[in-house]
Amino acid sequence: MEKKYNIGIDIGGTNTVFGLVEKTGNIIKKGSISTKGFESINQFIIALKKEMEKSFPESFWSNIEKIGIGAPNGNYYTGNIEFAPNLEWKGVLPLKNLFESYFNIPTIVSNDANAAAMGEHQYGNAKGMHDFIMITLGTGVGSGFYSNGKIIYGHDGFAGELGHVIAVREGRSCGCGRKGCLETYTSATGIVKTAHDFLKENPNSILYEVENITAKEIFIAAEKNDELAKSIFDYTGKILGQTLADAVAITSPEAIILFGGLAQAGKYIFEPTQKYMEENLLSIYKNKVKILPSALSESDVAILGASALI
Amino acid sequence: MEKKYNIGIDIGGTNTVFGLVEKTGNIIKKGSISTKGFESINQFIIALKKEMEKSFPESFWSNIEKIGIGAPNGNYYTGNIEFAPNLEWKGVLPLKNLFESYFNIPTIVSNDANAAAMGEHQYGNAKGMHDFIMITLGTGVGSGFYSNGKIIYGHDGFAGELGHVIAVREGRSCGCGRKGCLETYTSATGIVKTAHDFLKENPNSILYEVENITAKEIFIAAEKNDELAKSIFDYTGKILGQTLADAVAITSPEAIILFGGLAQAGKYIFEPTQKYMEENLLSIYKNKVKILPSALSESDVAILGASALI
Repeated sequence: MEKKYNIGIDIGGTNTVFGLVEKTGNIIKKGSISTKGFESINQFIIALKKEMEKSFPESFWSNIEKIGIGAPNGNYYTGNIEFAPNLEWKGVLPLKNLFESYFNIPTIVSNDANAAAMGEHQYGNAKGMHDFIMITLGTGVGSGFYSNGKIIYGHDGFAGELGHVIAVREGRSCGCGRKGCLETYTSATGIVKTAHDFLKENPNSILYEVENITAKEIFIAAEKNDELAKSIFDYTGKILGQTLADAVAITSPEAIILFGGLAQAGKYIFEPTQKYMEENLLSIYKNKVKILPSALSESDVAILGASALI
Repeated sequence: MEKKYNIGIDIGGTNTVFGLVEKTGNIIKKGSISTKGFESINQFIIALKKEMEKSFPESFWSNIEKIGIGAPNGNYYTGNIEFAPNLEWKGVLPLKNLFESYFNIPTIVSNDANAAAMGEHQYGNAKGMHDFIMITLGTGVGSGFYSNGKIIYGHDGFAGELGHVIAVREGRSCGCGRKGCLETYTSATGIVKTAHDFLKENPNSILYEVENITAKEIFIAAEKNDELAKSIFDYTGKILGQTLADAVAITSPEAIILFGGLAQAGKYIFEPTQKYMEENLLSIYKNKVKILPSALSESDVAILGASALI
């Protein structure tokens, strides 16, 4: 008999969320545990399994077909997490093998942005699209590229690192050791850096009074019509739009979907991104590429995305 | 009975070459006509057909399965040439329809760089590769991207314009109307521009005596150990290597194949390109991506590439 459910798991730097998903994309149960505080990946998986067993009634377990996992630097080909800078466990972690040993359920691994792209493709705004780009604007910037109806994994499984394309030559220092990576400008942390830079030049902003500036505080200031806050978004959208124009020249997508913390800022980020992308596009691509928000909720996309890997 | 031959045609801005190709990739007959001097695309096709009928014995014509055409701005999806800046006929040219009408043979159209990529994939150094990038360094810079074993055509058939990625923000003016496109630096014409720029700063070079500097003259000077000529190649390889490092972060190819006039300069262009690409790669991609010359001869690649479309 065909099994009815899949499990989707998103391993983030801070939290890990999991869900029991029907094949229609309906999430029946979900839960989460902290990713932090486990000495080894094995201890983490044991704790995760215990939490999942509490959450999913015993009768479900025999009806699960597969486990899909989205993880930072998760590699679809090898099933490993490889050298993820934001996890406490270093080196190569054989995620697929470990899950299959502990759960005895076939497991598929991918990176978190690819998993989000697959969730969007199966259940969201990219339904039916053969060529699109998913951009996750979170603590870092991730991306998943679809071409010919399939994720571009590349030769080694590590394709789609738009966050580490050089957006500004000799620009800001990046955690990867290089300079000017897109994520140093257009992530939730990048825009805060821009805010601090802009405030040095022009302290005439309500942000000057904010003790701990976050992407959300910049959004709130923009909502209050703060000019500096709006110029911070404009600058961020400019860097993102310029880089997207170059990415379009490579894969010519039907749409680019923006997801994650910064995408929550709505028109403040979408409008300048679209404007500067159009200004920078080669003429054959102009007025063709939609920039869309994700159709999935922040809390579900990770689970749905991971389950869509299957 | 299965037909034994295909026809490969490469329509260039100056010349059009054609060949009768066995399915093994063996070119039995070839020929060429000028692309210039025809008032309409129809007159051009009629002249081309006449030339081909002279070249291929009558007995072959019933044994031809398909015609493959590589053309600037050729679109695989529509079968049209669309707004090619380097052809005398403007607007949209329904190439597939016209060829099928005049020849009564099924016809496939693609852009010239994609056709070259397919030729390399079927008969050259990219044989068996699922993920690679073909770069043509000619009068302009073209590219064909393979991912998951297929050409990335993109949503509209126009993917793969690496020559129009912005290599230098606010850099040299490009024929496309924008600034800093890769092809303004790394095409055969781009490197000549670099030579003129460098000679203004430092006339201490044997190139100073050359009346009409070409990519080939710069190569000859480098062969004579001219320091300026070598620094011109170094600069060109730097711009190309930096841009390739960003392209690798998107599609993570197994290899990048350099083809066309500038690639003939061998180590003078390959060595700096590889060096600066490695310096600029995100660490997960380092020492993984080969930069290779094409295995096909300049005169055959167009015909083989076009025939490989089939």
